[in-house]
Amino acid sequence: MHMDLVAALDIGGTKIAGALVDDRGRLLLRAQRPTLAQEDGETVMGAVEEVLGELTASAPWPRVRAVGIGSAGPVDRSRGTVSPVNVPGWRGFPLVDRVRAVTGELPVELIGDGVAITAAEHWQGAAQGHDNALGMVVSTGVGGGLILGGELHPGPTGNAGHIGHISVDLDGDPCPCGARGCVERIASGPNIARRALAEGWRPGADGDATAAAVARAARAGDPVAIASFERAAQALAAGIAATATLVEIDIAVIGGGVAKAGDVLFTPLRRALRDYATLSFVQGLTVAPASMGTDAGLVGAAAAALRVGPGVNGVRRQAV
Amino acid sequence: MHMDLVAALDIGGTKIAGALVDDRGRLLLRAQRPTLAQEDGETVMGAVEEVLGELTASAPWPRVRAVGIGSAGPVDRSRGTVSPVNVPGWRGFPLVDRVRAVTGELPVELIGDGVAITAAEHWQGAAQGHDNALGMVVSTGVGGGLILGGELHPGPTGNAGHIGHISVDLDGDPCPCGARGCVERIASGPNIARRALAEGWRPGADGDATAAAVARAARAGDPVAIASFERAAQALAAGIAATATLVEIDIAVIGGGVAKAGDVLFTPLRRALRDYATLSFVQGLTVAPASMGTDAGLVGAAAAALRVGPGVNGVRRQAV
Repeated sequence: MHMDLVAALDIGGTKIAGALVDDRGRLLLRAQRPTLAQEDGETVMGAVEEVLGELTASAPWPRVRAVGIGSAGPVDRSRGTVSPVNVPGWRGFPLVDRVRAVTGELPVELIGDGVAITAAEHWQGAAQGHDNALGMVVSTGVGGGLILGGELHPGPTGNAGHIGHISVDLDGDPCPCGARGCVERIASGPNIARRALAEGWRPGADGDATAAAVARAARAGDPVAIASFERAAQALAAGIAATATLVEIDIAVIGGGVAKAGDVLFTPLRRALRDYATLSFVQGLTVAPASMGTDAGLVGAAAAALRVGPGVNGVRRQAV
Repeated sequence: MHMDLVAALDIGGTKIAGALVDDRGRLLLRAQRPTLAQEDGETVMGAVEEVLGELTASAPWPRVRAVGIGSAGPVDRSRGTVSPVNVPGWRGFPLVDRVRAVTGELPVELIGDGVAITAAEHWQGAAQGHDNALGMVVSTGVGGGLILGGELHPGPTGNAGHIGHISVDLDGDPCPCGARGCVERIASGPNIARRALAEGWRPGADGDATAAAVARAARAGDPVAIASFERAAQALAAGIAATATLVEIDIAVIGGGVAKAGDVLFTPLRRALRDYATLSFVQGLTVAPASMGTDAGLVGAAAAALRVGPGVNGVRRQAV
């Protein structure tokens, strides 16, 4: 009954969520505010403080041993700062210090949101039991994280696994990041829709021109829609194969809105993976849909907190 | 005077080298045989046994605490087998068991040759002091290895860091590995020479049509030769940037024959790296020439052995 708890924060471009989480990953208490992303940095921080205020005022708070933060990136874990692309008021914002000002002496771990989701999938989702795994979110952007040797690998700054911005087409289209032919530039939802429209696909009566609508058209047999998903799958396969060749993962778990296309994405992805994952030591590589729901960010932030909490070695599955 | 030693084996397509190495990385005693790569597997193993025989018969052998093997790949560290591309008689060859038959109960560590060279550069070479580094060999092929969080990251099979076979041009030329547009397919010595010849470069009176000759022509101002190195540099930059984006390395150390081209390679490489390493957390990424000589494979195998030797935690720089 008196198990340790951690506090988790999931900071995104639309909402700031918080929870108290036990060491089996159960969310005991939640709080949430919208991210007023276009307001100044202090306003956004005010929402974080309100979420934290609900948590610290709760009865179980004295049992909290650490705080984990998963944030839209880029983050800088070594400096404790965040610069989320979609929150212009936060550039090098000292989020860890500001959280500490509320939570006191508890250890605080900061990681990117793709890293957090990967931690959650490894702890409780589709990457369970895999000591070397890539977690991915394919949505408006493409993010990710890595499990290596059974442990989360956030990297020094907390951004490792950022597969969306590796180039798989070095002469390809310019990416907003400044490079060319990045995985995200080919495989994100908006790019799937853009490519389908450019090749002549047209939305239906509902006017929906998103990747979800392209997925529906592909499922109905529209060749242009199918081709746009196949191209996305090819880029994802090249990126996943590159990751496996570099660090020896054996599974890539893919979540996010684009992954909801299901077979429309996964069938050509599995086929393309055989084209790019060719060396003997990566031929066993598989892909699977993510299985955590919308709480993945909170669960992953909790997993990261459990790694740094006092007396906690790794993520335990048993209550103490 | 009674410091611990390890035995190191460096197994390549042309020679099999062995040495006793102390915990400061000094080679005390060497043995070497040619690799009769086209002979049957037992003949090749016979040469390994001769090298080991010289080591085990030496006076310092009783002080040896572990054996490290760096081998041409692919290797399978988890199974203790090797299948070097250039040694057809060895396919899934149980090298670790066969070495153990000679060396008895000593722990044996097996890693790929690119991983070994990376371990050497981290211990004593150009990657010293970098906790997150990529080591590369750009030569007939392109190989590599990773240091993550201050430790060698061989991966479960010992092949991690194999940057030569990540695709940076997903629609590019077919690579012998089966994929397309691999870094090696663009940046290896033979491909630098092939591209220069295809674009109209011609060897001089000596008939030398290797990448070294292309490098000399580039240094003399030949635009086709310069362009071929620039293309190789672009592919290397895309691959190095991808690695940094995935695992957060801050330096790539490059050895091998192509790296001997010096500024002909490194100047366009540093320029191209700015084009592909764009995210905030990889902008500090640098490249440097490798500094270890031909003993890098042996020193790296010794470093791997020191990781697994009894009572040895990591690579020590002080004699015990």
